[in-house]
Amino acid sequence: MKTDQDFMRMALDLAATAKGKTNPNPVVGAILVKDGVIVGSGIHRKAGEPHAEVHAFHMAGEHAKGATLYVTLEPCSHFGKTPPCANLVKDSGVKRVVVATEDPNPAVGGKGINLIKHAGIEVEVGVLKEEALKLNERFIHNMIYEMPFVISKVAMTLDGKIAAYTGHSKWITGEEARREVHELRNEVDGILVGVGTVLADNPKLTTRLDFQGKNPVRIIMDSNLRTPLDAHVADCIEAKTIIVTTKERNDEKAKLLEEKGVKILTVPSINGKIAGDMTLKMLYKEGITDILLEGGSEINASFMRENLIQKYLVYVAPKILGGKSSYTPYRGEDVETINEAVHLRYTDVEKVGEDLKITAYPL
Amino acid sequence: MKTDQDFMRMALDLAATAKGKTNPNPVVGAILVKDGVIVGSGIHRKAGEPHAEVHAFHMAGEHAKGATLYVTLEPCSHFGKTPPCANLVKDSGVKRVVVATEDPNPAVGGKGINLIKHAGIEVEVGVLKEEALKLNERFIHNMIYEMPFVISKVAMTLDGKIAAYTGHSKWITGEEARREVHELRNEVDGILVGVGTVLADNPKLTTRLDFQGKNPVRIIMDSNLRTPLDAHVADCIEAKTIIVTTKERNDEKAKLLEEKGVKILTVPSINGKIAGDMTLKMLYKEGITDILLEGGSEINASFMRENLIQKYLVYVAPKILGGKSSYTPYRGEDVETINEAVHLRYTDVEKVGEDLKITAYPL
Repeated sequence: MKTDQDFMRMALDLAATAKGKTNPNPVVGAILVKDGVIVGSGIHRKAGEPHAEVHAFHMAGEHAKGATLYVTLEPCSHFGKTPPCANLVKDSGVKRVVVATEDPNPAVGGKGINLIKHAGIEVEVGVLKEEALKLNERFIHNMIYEMPFVISKVAMTLDGKIAAYTGHSKWITGEEARREVHELRNEVDGILVGVGTVLADNPKLTTRLDFQGKNPVRIIMDSNLRTPLDAHVADCIEAKTIIVTTKERNDEKAKLLEEKGVKILTVPSINGKIAGDMTLKMLYKEGITDILLEGGSEINASFMRENLIQKYLVYVAPKILGGKSSYTPYRGEDVETINEAVHLRYTDVEKVGEDLKITAYPL
Repeated sequence: MKTDQDFMRMALDLAATAKGKTNPNPVVGAILVKDGVIVGSGIHRKAGEPHAEVHAFHMAGEHAKGATLYVTLEPCSHFGKTPPCANLVKDSGVKRVVVATEDPNPAVGGKGINLIKHAGIEVEVGVLKEEALKLNERFIHNMIYEMPFVISKVAMTLDGKIAAYTGHSKWITGEEARREVHELRNEVDGILVGVGTVLADNPKLTTRLDFQGKNPVRIIMDSNLRTPLDAHVADCIEAKTIIVTTKERNDEKAKLLEEKGVKILTVPSINGKIAGDMTLKMLYKEGITDILLEGGSEINASFMRENLIQKYLVYVAPKILGGKSSYTPYRGEDVETINEAVHLRYTDVEKVGEDLKITAYPL
């Protein structure tokens, strides 16, 4: 006999398959169960397409009557690009609705659940809530802060080095870990780096996978517009590029970059440095809901110190590099004591090939 | 019905309880089983005391006849501080002997097993061999290289920092991890640090535990005898101290340290640096079979680069420190490329309190 948890886990597993494809929307999975048998299932696949519940009801047809709906996120109650799902649920004939978590979207906020309850349908909220919140951590952060969810990704040796003093860093981690990073790029809206990385490595910052991946927008923090016109990132055919700069930048260079298709985003500066929080707010308005922060160490440190990182992904290679001048993952200003460190909590550690992948969240 | 593996695992678990107490001898456990029932068990508790087999046979008495002996290490065939166990096994009346691994001691090397086989007793070798080798990794290294087994211990932040630029490092890891380090000190013969650590922190380097712990010998690498006469490590009442130095050191200072009970070990130098391998060979002759290498970062790097570290224990706190000048765990000379890193393999990762403990071995 399967439990509510079992069916909700299936709905969550379904939802997870759409991760990275629904931005700016959340990922949602729905399952309809009647007499212990699954009579409908659905996923929200892409913004603008039907919600998960719609697909599930469509599949179930008449079988929805008397069934139980398992849905990973509260059904919506507002008219967006599609009509409200709560109405659909209300009229479907289901006798019970199990919801993993309420919708953090202020436009919904429990209204969907209330609408269904008032129709006399039994509603249970909170089954596998933690998992559901984690699955939509990006969306929830967006709704609350109106900023992109920032994931700091680092590939380092066991002694915390990301490159030799010469800048040589190919490759610290193994093939599996590098492939995972490309899969991660395929899931986010933007990759953010400092202009130092562009000048040093001239990276393409595109998604290279065996299958046709999505190229996130390349975002370059470049207060003085030092990005060369012939840099790979200035070539906007394969992927879009946004250069974040300040009012002090050279207008002529800005125009030349714009002619190449680069979008110039002018952000206020504080003590000559681009304001990180303003950058994120403006990028969110440009439709960027999540960002993979890929360094270098000064940009990493500045985002870390401003508490603008929501998730840390640290790949640790089983190697010791040593050296007085080799690069470390978060540089920035020195602090006097250990007490001034940013505190995190580990949520996951796993082996990826020969490397370790450590996942941590700020406390 | 219990298998050979089950009984050998019990013998290994017994042996493990004596870890750190048998130096320079290996840890060994033995179990005698007759008709599925354990009739004898024994551990080698301490050098000079009876071997595990002796205890097991003593307990079993007449029940040993027709029994099976499970022993984690090949029974010895030579007269040491005790008579050879292989003779005891031969005369015991057991009908079968299961051995986890051969003895790497060149004075034994399969002779014990042959002696028992020639007495017409069935012998099986290799049950849980990997576990048995790991349990005695220190002893096996000693036998092959005639050098102490060196464990490099590091406590760092997730971004690979062991101290702020001010030297402040109290505390990076949590209570549980720090307690584990004291337990580790309780298991080794020596703790090794550079004189820089003595000058910076004036540590006691003793074992502080709730129970009466053993204090390992404190070993200071100090080519010019800069250790102050009033340093904690120069006070040899609580624990012994060996200062490793070179011929170029000041004889007067050496005499003053010796008067305080410090042992001065003069080791050849190469380009003004104490030769690490010679140091270890001489320390082994002084009876040091394993060493916890506790930094600083220059000593760590020099042992790492000379391949003198057999095991890496890295405690990683969930913190990011950053900083241009904060200390990293392995410093030393810079190398040009990532390819020149020392390659390791991970064998274990576990949570210790809020910290991670990563165990790695050189490839």
